[in-house]
Amino acid sequence: MLTMDKVYDARRVLDGVVRHTDIQKAHRFIKEDLLFFKPENLQKTGSFKVRGAAYKIAKLSDEEKQKGVIACSAGNHAQGVALAAKKSGIKSIICLPAGAPISKIEATKSYGAEVCLVPGVYDDAYKKALELRDEFGYTFVHPFDDEDVIAGQATVALEALEDLPDIGAVVVPIGGGGLISGVAFAVKHINPKIKVYGVQSESAPSMLNSIKDGKIETLNSVNTIADGIAVKTPGENTFKLVNEYVDDIVTVSDKEICSAILALMEKQKMIAEGAGAVSVAAVMSNKIPIEGKRVLSIISGGNIDVTNLSSVIKRGLMNAGRITSLKIELMDKPGQLEKVVDVISKCGANIKEIRHNRAANTENIYSCYLTVEMETRDYEHGKEIVDRLEEMDIRVIKFND
Amino acid sequence: MLTMDKVYDARRVLDGVVRHTDIQKAHRFIKEDLLFFKPENLQKTGSFKVRGAAYKIAKLSDEEKQKGVIACSAGNHAQGVALAAKKSGIKSIICLPAGAPISKIEATKSYGAEVCLVPGVYDDAYKKALELRDEFGYTFVHPFDDEDVIAGQATVALEALEDLPDIGAVVVPIGGGGLISGVAFAVKHINPKIKVYGVQSESAPSMLNSIKDGKIETLNSVNTIADGIAVKTPGENTFKLVNEYVDDIVTVSDKEICSAILALMEKQKMIAEGAGAVSVAAVMSNKIPIEGKRVLSIISGGNIDVTNLSSVIKRGLMNAGRITSLKIELMDKPGQLEKVVDVISKCGANIKEIRHNRAANTENIYSCYLTVEMETRDYEHGKEIVDRLEEMDIRVIKFND
Repeated sequence: MLTMDKVYDARRVLDGVVRHTDIQKAHRFIKEDLLFFKPENLQKTGSFKVRGAAYKIAKLSDEEKQKGVIACSAGNHAQGVALAAKKSGIKSIICLPAGAPISKIEATKSYGAEVCLVPGVYDDAYKKALELRDEFGYTFVHPFDDEDVIAGQATVALEALEDLPDIGAVVVPIGGGGLISGVAFAVKHINPKIKVYGVQSESAPSMLNSIKDGKIETLNSVNTIADGIAVKTPGENTFKLVNEYVDDIVTVSDKEICSAILALMEKQKMIAEGAGAVSVAAVMSNKIPIEGKRVLSIISGGNIDVTNLSSVIKRGLMNAGRITSLKIELMDKPGQLEKVVDVISKCGANIKEIRHNRAANTENIYSCYLTVEMETRDYEHGKEIVDRLEEMDIRVIKFND
Repeated sequence: MLTMDKVYDARRVLDGVVRHTDIQKAHRFIKEDLLFFKPENLQKTGSFKVRGAAYKIAKLSDEEKQKGVIACSAGNHAQGVALAAKKSGIKSIICLPAGAPISKIEATKSYGAEVCLVPGVYDDAYKKALELRDEFGYTFVHPFDDEDVIAGQATVALEALEDLPDIGAVVVPIGGGGLISGVAFAVKHINPKIKVYGVQSESAPSMLNSIKDGKIETLNSVNTIADGIAVKTPGENTFKLVNEYVDDIVTVSDKEICSAILALMEKQKMIAEGAGAVSVAAVMSNKIPIEGKRVLSIISGGNIDVTNLSSVIKRGLMNAGRITSLKIELMDKPGQLEKVVDVISKCGANIKEIRHNRAANTENIYSCYLTVEMETRDYEHGKEIVDRLEEMDIRVIKFND
């Protein structure tokens, strides 16, 4: 059974092993005077996962340590286990699906793990990990459904309440539920008046559905920019703890997550991954009751694939109307393009990209498509341009679609 | 004359007005145990500029305050002046060239300035600002060549030496020279043994050239990703101070700057702008002698245009060999594309983008171009793929070009 003694023990064990991440005040966010961040994206390995892994490893017997640990993950858990094992001087094996991004494989290796690439998907890698465990006696480190792991994650809450005792609510991302189980357990034992809200991606609401229906349920598919919390089935321990200690669970869309990642970059100058930003997205989209009290959003990680950042930024800018994208049908005759460019310029928008496609399969063989992407002030500014174009009988087929 | 009394006075005046930015240890950078960052990208308005502006404004007479201030800038100086004026309850006018990015204009307005858009380029906006000053009696706030402004920027050094007294060197970006003048003056007065290194973009080495030739010189053009330090002519005060107090000036390329921005994002989870990252780029490219001593890189700002981030990331990844881009000439017959894809797949690279261009104006009318972009481990991995392709008589025309 999880106890506060165990959580405090984890705190002692992890002291000096993981970073105490300093709470940041939100700058230029809505309700900025009440909003705070616990930046676990600045934790070692770029996520809170190293806490649970390090405490789990610390609690192993000498014999277990001597044999080593195994885990299955292409993400933050892999890096957490790898670093925690290295720091304890024990061996770690991480099973990954062979198609995992090279950057993830290299990162896991760089923290000292032995990487085992398994043909197929995640489930195949998981099966392989259990086989290797049985064959060699490794200890399997579960990413969330383990009491020691949960106690390790709970240290996030201890640090946060020491640094900022006067809070009304904590907002926590939920994937498998390891982080929120630990955080909610610790928070409610220390001060039951503090609300604990969980946040899931609306495309992966496995814990929300399970809690609603009162039993653990499995989703068929999970596909979200918040890949770190794209979990099909909650854990048994975590389901019970969330059921008992969490006040409410809300969901956010990928659009809202992109806006939160962009806001953290521009205002806080901070990189968060999708899963890490859901707790900020929930506040930004007014899904968390604030009621004049301080709210702490836990940013769980920062290991976003940088090659995806440009599309995240673009979506964030489009959501805010700071980029407007139009598809226009033009008659294929001289002077048409000039008319469009003239309207845009007079409205004070900056064209970033323009594509003129004569070969397109338009309804009218004398017309062609023009795709324009421009920097605008906000949604109204984009709408103004569309209205002006339509006043000139120029047909706008798509507006921010 | 600049004095330490003035610098300490600036420190007192700015206390509570600007943020004391906390020094960060470098994580997973080269020489990480010796490398530290002073993150002025986390300063209010996203750059150190607010320090100088706020001190300048604090020193104005009541009559001057009553009339207000004017400045000419499309960047960090504009936002610094705007916020500093707002905090002092005085009026600020910022002249900007009319073509400035909308995001910059909106940011400047959001800090409370009155924006005056001037048709033409920077020089036209500057002329207009001086005209308005003469007409309305505003005080012109120079972006760097002003003793009060320099004293304000020097507070960066006071904070840094309080927090991390045991350093061997400070590395500072140079544009007009305001920041480094203040920092070098303060550092050398407090501890002359600490080395002060300046860093310029190799495409905008105006201070370096001027110091070398012993007189102020003007560049014809400056064009760099580090737009915040793209200054054609150093100031008179700053030239003298740099000449007297700075140990050496080095330059970095845009390639090196992109690598530094990417490293800060991935390792430090931090957004820096080009000008802000040059001090990190100089250390990463081994241009600063470290010699077993602690080095502090000042990250001067974080206001990068997010729409440019994707090309910065791409260049950074290419520099590290983590993206490999090939242009291949293929015979235009069945099975050719398959051969290429097969080699890449067997070498374990992930294809991110592929374009097959049959209409290209190739030398041989029976051939066509194929452009492939893929995720690779490092430069050697990309080279291995090129070698394998060439073994199969497939002509690689461009490799990472």
